[in-house]
Amino acid sequence: MNLASYFPILSWGRTYNGQTFLNDGVAALIVTIMLIPQSLAYALLAGLPPEIGLYASILPLLVYAIFGTSRTLAVGPVAILSLMTAAAAGKIAATGTPQYVEAALVLALLSGAMLFALGLFRMGFLSNFLSHPVISGFITASGIIIAASQLKHIFGVSVSGHNLIEIIVGLFEQVSEINLPTLLIGVSSLLFLFWVRSSLKPVLKTIGLGEKTATIIARAGPVFAVIASILVVGILRLDQAGVRILRDVPTSLPSIGLPQFDADMWSELISSSALIALIGFVESVSVAKTLAAKRRQRIDPNQELIALGASSMSAGVSSGYPVTGGLARSAVNFDAGAETPAAGAFTAVGIALATLFLTPFLYFLPQAVLAATIIVAVLSLVDIKALRTVWAYSKSDFAAMAATILMTLGFGVELGILTGVGLSLLLHLYNTSRPHFAFVGQVPGTQHFRNIDRHTVVTSEEVLTLRVDESLYFANARFLEDTVDATLSTHPQMQHLILMCPAVNRIDASGLESLEAINSRLKEANVTLHMSEVKGPVMDRLQTTHFLEELTGKVYLHQYEAMEDLLPSLTRTTGRIHELGHADDGSPNFTI
Amino acid sequence: MNLASYFPILSWGRTYNGQTFLNDGVAALIVTIMLIPQSLAYALLAGLPPEIGLYASILPLLVYAIFGTSRTLAVGPVAILSLMTAAAAGKIAATGTPQYVEAALVLALLSGAMLFALGLFRMGFLSNFLSHPVISGFITASGIIIAASQLKHIFGVSVSGHNLIEIIVGLFEQVSEINLPTLLIGVSSLLFLFWVRSSLKPVLKTIGLGEKTATIIARAGPVFAVIASILVVGILRLDQAGVRILRDVPTSLPSIGLPQFDADMWSELISSSALIALIGFVESVSVAKTLAAKRRQRIDPNQELIALGASSMSAGVSSGYPVTGGLARSAVNFDAGAETPAAGAFTAVGIALATLFLTPFLYFLPQAVLAATIIVAVLSLVDIKALRTVWAYSKSDFAAMAATILMTLGFGVELGILTGVGLSLLLHLYNTSRPHFAFVGQVPGTQHFRNIDRHTVVTSEEVLTLRVDESLYFANARFLEDTVDATLSTHPQMQHLILMCPAVNRIDASGLESLEAINSRLKEANVTLHMSEVKGPVMDRLQTTHFLEELTGKVYLHQYEAMEDLLPSLTRTTGRIHELGHADDGSPNFTI
Repeated sequence: MNLASYFPILSWGRTYNGQTFLNDGVAALIVTIMLIPQSLAYALLAGLPPEIGLYASILPLLVYAIFGTSRTLAVGPVAILSLMTAAAAGKIAATGTPQYVEAALVLALLSGAMLFALGLFRMGFLSNFLSHPVISGFITASGIIIAASQLKHIFGVSVSGHNLIEIIVGLFEQVSEINLPTLLIGVSSLLFLFWVRSSLKPVLKTIGLGEKTATIIARAGPVFAVIASILVVGILRLDQAGVRILRDVPTSLPSIGLPQFDADMWSELISSSALIALIGFVESVSVAKTLAAKRRQRIDPNQELIALGASSMSAGVSSGYPVTGGLARSAVNFDAGAETPAAGAFTAVGIALATLFLTPFLYFLPQAVLAATIIVAVLSLVDIKALRTVWAYSKSDFAAMAATILMTLGFGVELGILTGVGLSLLLHLYNTSRPHFAFVGQVPGTQHFRNIDRHTVVTSEEVLTLRVDESLYFANARFLEDTVDATLSTHPQMQHLILMCPAVNRIDASGLESLEAINSRLKEANVTLHMSEVKGPVMDRLQTTHFLEELTGKVYLHQYEAMEDLLPSLTRTTGRIHELGHADDGSPNFTI
Repeated sequence: MNLASYFPILSWGRTYNGQTFLNDGVAALIVTIMLIPQSLAYALLAGLPPEIGLYASILPLLVYAIFGTSRTLAVGPVAILSLMTAAAAGKIAATGTPQYVEAALVLALLSGAMLFALGLFRMGFLSNFLSHPVISGFITASGIIIAASQLKHIFGVSVSGHNLIEIIVGLFEQVSEINLPTLLIGVSSLLFLFWVRSSLKPVLKTIGLGEKTATIIARAGPVFAVIASILVVGILRLDQAGVRILRDVPTSLPSIGLPQFDADMWSELISSSALIALIGFVESVSVAKTLAAKRRQRIDPNQELIALGASSMSAGVSSGYPVTGGLARSAVNFDAGAETPAAGAFTAVGIALATLFLTPFLYFLPQAVLAATIIVAVLSLVDIKALRTVWAYSKSDFAAMAATILMTLGFGVELGILTGVGLSLLLHLYNTSRPHFAFVGQVPGTQHFRNIDRHTVVTSEEVLTLRVDESLYFANARFLEDTVDATLSTHPQMQHLILMCPAVNRIDASGLESLEAINSRLKEANVTLHMSEVKGPVMDRLQTTHFLEELTGKVYLHQYEAMEDLLPSLTRTTGRIHELGHADDGSPNFTI
């Protein structure tokens, strides 16, 4: 590990030149324009003052540019972490209180510190606890909750709640309070943004714009909605008709400092921080990997942990809240031609300038428009169809996914993700605890051995061969014992049992102990245990133990050798050998 | 599933005859004699009045005889569950209070109900969470704690504590209070019992007794100590010199009835009950399996859950406490010739008779002797040597085992077992999250493909083959992505990548999604992805998805076929193919 692997800026910085600067600058300008309304909207979603969203888009981006390994990842506030921040901070204090803002800072600091530590200790594998269906289910359910939670801004009412039921009930209770001008602005923004997303790009291409330019302009749709709505509301003074607007956003840069240490609050936020860290990392890494591969580049997941951790921690000391790499924004950055993480640093400068000089112009920006941009963005994350695909492919994965969705919708993000992780682990253990074992026999006239249930093979009642189709470890070791026990009680003539191990990649201590138990139980019953086709690394480890001395039989390099040795008459006589085959009706007809 | 599989008594009962009755009766008599001091001692260990131990040895044995599938398992109180009962009940109330006894009843009822439910829903696989090293470490640590906790009876002092440190500190504080007559009785019983265990059997065999008779008499050693100590204490009236004795044990049978429902207490005991159920089941099943195999019989683990569950529940309604199959007692039952579970029922009758008529004779039995029998019994469970064996075989398993031992000794049984289970799961995920992948090349002149790092093989820079040596699931799917990403960035000439899958037994939804991601990332980079030697069941499931349509390349039945197709010149020309081999110094010298 050299210094440049911890500070990737040292490698890409060395070859930085004018052309790269130009490309990064253009990309940064486009991302900045996109990020201004986004950061305000996500702060709103997190229940935080709008400037917090801007602050979270300055220092964290500079820090990521130093540590990050992705050339094109755009770090900053994202929808799902904003929702998770709201859920966690909401347990500490009410929205709008200084404690609530403080809790968001602490979440950024703690989740950042966790990511950083995981990166230093190279523990990125922990994110593997999150299976794809659980993540997909979680994102879908979060998208639904986020969209539902933003409806209040479209309707111009006040509703709070961290799960779907609370939100829907709240909306129904408030239905008489709906503010018509707000609804009009909200619904027309929604319609406009959906149109932009679905139809603007083809239109732009028809009028002669290139693929990339069309994509970028279409992605910048929210900016047009923002400008138009500011003009309409400001000119008609719709704020006096009850339309909620952004009003004054402080035009100062964030102050730097550690949040106050409050042991009770910090310990209450530990588990939420861990979940935010995990989800943020998984999301960001999958985006970064996809973009890197497009240019045959590579990201280092452990260094990404360090970079995202440092980035989130920097949000925690600069009045921000948890950040990570965002999907849509990174794609725009990539399409706009960003070449190095410097583009992110330039974006940070852009946001800082916007904070200082642009926010007064956003005074009349209606919250309904911000809500509409969130709704359109998150609904594209909702993928109900995936449920059907996963159902068709794997019932276990479907169960984990469905449980994640239902628990997230019904009981909030934290219980949702924990249920999904727990269930997928349980189901994985269940599935591997009953691995595939097959009795095999010799394909007549060859040295090959095949499953007696699928092939016409030669077998013997005295010498049985069980092929083990999985590594032996604690979750399935006892199932092997059960299988051998059952064989022992149903095959009174058995004298030799051969475990054929070509697919056993690993035997852990539990597997070894089960093999020892099987060996000694078979010995009591006067059956000799053999093994065949044991892989090199597995054999190496077995040789460090006493097992091979205790083994009543031998270890054969090849299964054929074992049969030649134990049953020399196998291929020559059919006297005591049963030639097995399919019965006339095509159904298997085997004695084993 | 027929009735007899839920009530095994219906099958073995049908062939019951006079000879079986005689054999079962003899075994029951021997086990009864052994069980009387044991049940009193284990009740003492659990902090319960002595009669509770006897009560737990009556109804539960009758119930197991109806439901159990093991012919020779002897159910009843055991050391480790007694310790766990003490730890759990101690959180509810102080030893000696009615609430404490009530808590023990509730533990029996709840743990029994859990086992019963797991059996009905065939969820026995849950016990696979406990790996062998964790169980072994847990038993060793529990044995040490139990032995240490009994020292107070040997010294005649009062000490309480649920972990080793508390117990040792307590003993040192009380060192001035040691009662000399008690110490004399305790130490001489200990010496006698250790001598019985180590040397009596050879002596008995020298004087002409058979192997089995010698074994059984040696196992009954505690009975001699009990009789001798009662006589000594009774005649010398040592109880007046401070030797604590058993005194009056009620001579009535247990009353039947449900413990009172107390929502707070019951919910506080839920997790302890789950641990007791799990440990009890795992211990019992491994004993039952070992004994069954000796006679080529078989036990059904799921029916065992039902039987042990019913048995423990019956303890909960008949003034008992959690029970399970015991190792030493079952071995005696087996050696003494028990043929059916009826032997257990006869033992129950024996204990009932002893409760009614024998207990008055136990008035002067010193507690120090009971403690000595426990110490000698549990020290045989302590297996420190296993630590060294496991260390040599597997560092991961060693870590889980050592953590279990340290946490159990330092923080008690419950935290100990939870740490062990959590850590072994984590380590398993870690180990399988970085499975073995190997780049392979053609063994010259053959159709075989081998690891380029281990063999002299022919490879190409345009067509690379990666052999996947593990099933693809959520814990390792991303590692495959990382491996392919790295390959992509380091092999600029690569045009085709073949994933060779002969050892892939399963691909879950996460694995599928990673394959899709790999396929589309390679596509962006103009590399075609192929697969070869995909197993039948894996292929069947892939065919239910769109993956095979999206796959940029083909699926080949054999790797050789793939190379023939993609690189027809492979075996004919060396123009664009690199012949790779070991350098002169023997070190690998490959371009890939």
